[in-house]
Amino acid sequence: MSYQIIAAEKVAQRNSKIPKDWLIFPQPFNDGTSLLQVPITCGVLSEVECEITSNYDATALLAKLRAGGFSAEQVTIAFCKRAAIAQQLVNCLTEVFFDEAIKRARQLDTERRESDSNTEVSFSPLPPLWGLPISLKDSFAYLGQDTSTGLACYVNEPATEHSALAALLLDLGAVLYCKTNLPQSIMTGDSDNNVFGRTLNPRNPCGLTAGGSTGGEGALLALRGSVLGVGTDIGGSIRVPSVCNGLYGLRPSVGVVPHGGVRDLTVPGTAGIMSSAGPMATSMRDISLFLQTIMQAETWKYDSTALAIPWSNHTKMDKKRLRIGLVEDDGLYTPSPPVRRGLKKAAGLLQAMGNVELVPIALPNVRQIYRDLLSYYMLSGSDYYFEQFGRTGEPLVPSLEALIPLLAQPRTTLKGFFDLNVRRTEAAKMYLSLFRDNNLDVILMPPAPHTAVPLDTWSTITYTGLWNYLDYPAVVVPVDQVREEDVADDLSNAKFGSEDARVYGLYTGPGEYRDAPICVQLVGYRHKDEALASMAAVLDGIINGI
Amino acid sequence: MSYQIIAAEKVAQRNSKIPKDWLIFPQPFNDGTSLLQVPITCGVLSEVECEITSNYDATALLAKLRAGGFSAEQVTIAFCKRAAIAQQLVNCLTEVFFDEAIKRARQLDTERRESDSNTEVSFSPLPPLWGLPISLKDSFAYLGQDTSTGLACYVNEPATEHSALAALLLDLGAVLYCKTNLPQSIMTGDSDNNVFGRTLNPRNPCGLTAGGSTGGEGALLALRGSVLGVGTDIGGSIRVPSVCNGLYGLRPSVGVVPHGGVRDLTVPGTAGIMSSAGPMATSMRDISLFLQTIMQAETWKYDSTALAIPWSNHTKMDKKRLRIGLVEDDGLYTPSPPVRRGLKKAAGLLQAMGNVELVPIALPNVRQIYRDLLSYYMLSGSDYYFEQFGRTGEPLVPSLEALIPLLAQPRTTLKGFFDLNVRRTEAAKMYLSLFRDNNLDVILMPPAPHTAVPLDTWSTITYTGLWNYLDYPAVVVPVDQVREEDVADDLSNAKFGSEDARVYGLYTGPGEYRDAPICVQLVGYRHKDEALASMAAVLDGIINGI
Repeated sequence: MSYQIIAAEKVAQRNSKIPKDWLIFPQPFNDGTSLLQVPITCGVLSEVECEITSNYDATALLAKLRAGGFSAEQVTIAFCKRAAIAQQLVNCLTEVFFDEAIKRARQLDTERRESDSNTEVSFSPLPPLWGLPISLKDSFAYLGQDTSTGLACYVNEPATEHSALAALLLDLGAVLYCKTNLPQSIMTGDSDNNVFGRTLNPRNPCGLTAGGSTGGEGALLALRGSVLGVGTDIGGSIRVPSVCNGLYGLRPSVGVVPHGGVRDLTVPGTAGIMSSAGPMATSMRDISLFLQTIMQAETWKYDSTALAIPWSNHTKMDKKRLRIGLVEDDGLYTPSPPVRRGLKKAAGLLQAMGNVELVPIALPNVRQIYRDLLSYYMLSGSDYYFEQFGRTGEPLVPSLEALIPLLAQPRTTLKGFFDLNVRRTEAAKMYLSLFRDNNLDVILMPPAPHTAVPLDTWSTITYTGLWNYLDYPAVVVPVDQVREEDVADDLSNAKFGSEDARVYGLYTGPGEYRDAPICVQLVGYRHKDEALASMAAVLDGIINGI
Repeated sequence: MSYQIIAAEKVAQRNSKIPKDWLIFPQPFNDGTSLLQVPITCGVLSEVECEITSNYDATALLAKLRAGGFSAEQVTIAFCKRAAIAQQLVNCLTEVFFDEAIKRARQLDTERRESDSNTEVSFSPLPPLWGLPISLKDSFAYLGQDTSTGLACYVNEPATEHSALAALLLDLGAVLYCKTNLPQSIMTGDSDNNVFGRTLNPRNPCGLTAGGSTGGEGALLALRGSVLGVGTDIGGSIRVPSVCNGLYGLRPSVGVVPHGGVRDLTVPGTAGIMSSAGPMATSMRDISLFLQTIMQAETWKYDSTALAIPWSNHTKMDKKRLRIGLVEDDGLYTPSPPVRRGLKKAAGLLQAMGNVELVPIALPNVRQIYRDLLSYYMLSGSDYYFEQFGRTGEPLVPSLEALIPLLAQPRTTLKGFFDLNVRRTEAAKMYLSLFRDNNLDVILMPPAPHTAVPLDTWSTITYTGLWNYLDYPAVVVPVDQVREEDVADDLSNAKFGSEDARVYGLYTGPGEYRDAPICVQLVGYRHKDEALASMAAVLDGIINGI
């Protein structure tokens, strides 16, 4: 069957899962202005539903749920409704299972009431994520729902079991209610595919990308149709949409968060650079909440590839003097004026604190690392991708079309793979020295050379991909947004050649980039995810006055 | 230069490092009887040196050192002397650096005295391995010494830096004094090579192998020329010599103990099944001591490939009811009569305890796993091995000659490697189910289908290699030795076909196998090394009444 028919039916099916009462009439005319306020002005949400979805982060909402301030059902319905609104505004959802979620939430409430009233039963505490709605990127298998990843060839193949993380989150008490959009191939910076189409950036729906590959999650969270989402990141796929949507987003070390049962489109058994699952949220403490809850759970029971690094609670940051490596650029791409200003602002606020020391550092060898990173991605060439697209005759979306030079890379031999491993081991030693010899606790740097950019122009992942290559945990922290003062400057400010100048030229000033979030990236050492989260909380507190 | 000349000069050089006063005259006539008593009867050791080297395990010796009962120098000299005796008896050493070790020990003593007498300096506690002599397998690089691994082509290339573990152990206060023998290629069960020759089994020097590949370490520890040694294990190389020499030997999960700077002979950058570094000792608590000390150290600072799993002290085993999976055989090789008796004895003692439950289980899919394990070992074929041997024209030693069918395996493609990975992931899921669904804490099984066997006949690593394939931690625990009652029985008892019968036929009864140690193997879940060590300590206490 042709992909157009599959897509039309799939989209109709998805749309039919949104109750009539939750439809926005009339749809706001999309003139490119920010959609962030529409969910609370469109009249679909009740006052208390506005409150539930607008006024809490996940940590606060959990406390409220735990205290009985809201029922699980009430909270779930509120987020289902707001997710439905977000879907109508920016096309961020793929699978919609509100019914099942609301049923589960009701069940959670009933069990709690029964447990409370039955004094004979021994006390069993509520699980740590009791009643919290969590959204998932489409690539996580959820029992009974497709894991199409936006490819027509995988539509109408409902999963026969949960991904490891979905099963774990349910056991921890969470409510799962929808899955979110992503790019064809899961490898581009625009969440656009031939089945579901493109997810828009709610801040600037005509001008700027919502990012990718976890872009549906990014847009949904920005509109607060979710309070906590989970994505995956093999080159920046959590961090890029976090930048585009002004969110906190963590790429943990590989294996810390269970990744079993996530579909990717590479040849099965591929080794080298591995994708990592991680949280996106509206506060740093929610990132820590997710990480701590997962690391304290018995992840090994859910996923044979999980790393059993326990949460140790050893890293209390309060009194320590922190040494921060400050990276201004990666030596390949010059950050645009707003990115430079954001980094300077963050560094300045940290510098002003007594217990923080900034150490300017240069990242070694990024050009070679980036070349090798691309070779790792394309170990088996691109035949396998094209095979999957070809099954339904679907064409490449523009953001993937733009990667044709990458896709055209020749496949590698086993010897070629081992040679990549040798260089990666050398790079790992070099970066260990960087951390150790400078006695660094964390690196502060831009997450990209630019903010969100116009549709289908995000081509650079050197700032994020470096940490996938080294498997270091890295978290994006919003610090500001583009303002009138962020005027574009001359291309001659691009320090690293013509490709740098091309990317530098994307920034045209605050007109087109109005309200684009500005973020920084904090990077920790491999497997020190807990320490990174602790330090990021302290630094976020200083930068954002939280 | 031909390998014979290189070897002759290298051996002469090594022998010259043994002071004249430490030579045994006359050498005991090697009539095949046990050499275990010779170190204390040969007259080289003083009474206190006999006491130091005979009466303590590492844990007790550290306590004594810490309390000032012995000086570091005294202890180091005692072990250097006893190692020299062991070398003369069973040819277990490769690199000898007694002088440097004694100098360091003296320095440690001096620093301690100065620190004790200087009350102005703030108190700094002794490092955890203060003054403890530790021996290393030859493959660990030690600054200024060769890392020849018994290959003529690598002789006279002194290391320019320490391996990560050597550097870490020194920082932890240990004294390193010698490196130990191993097989040509580091891949056989007999520690025999063209440079240093063969290491003998001190219990039965003519009849039974000392095991491999960490066989020099095994023989040295059996003669108490070392109290704590470190080997590496990619298929059984720590556990096989532990079986042959009646020692405790742990293969940790890969990355728990730093492995950087260990020479192996595979193509650089090889991925798939990785070698793991781990301890060999004369008590289970010494195994735990080593593991805990390493895991509490900042291994990541020494080795960019280290897994930063912290020691958590969470696993207190005292009160818990343990569920033990009991594996009688692996479905490929029938254990010989003494091995069956040893397992039955251990299981019986455990069964008699109130807080232990034995659950008979069968290991799934071992035949396919073993086939794939061999494919992983030979990913690049054997050209690289032969290239290294060819550089000096050295021939294959008999135990490697016996592996020619394995060496003749064709090299694999990148696709073939990924296919292996797919099957390995499936197997990992299957074994996770085995652990989880049976609610197992640990598996109890033989470490091999036989005890130490005659020279150059050890060909089976299915019992050990399975856990390298899955990357589960596994520890060998001695339970008995071959006795008169262990008569050989009919080949028809070999249940799994002709290859099984061939191996089963190796056991000819207690005559030839006199005093051969009998061991069991305890296996934990991946990355639960601390839990395995805690459980093994409890079970060892029950089995061996410690």
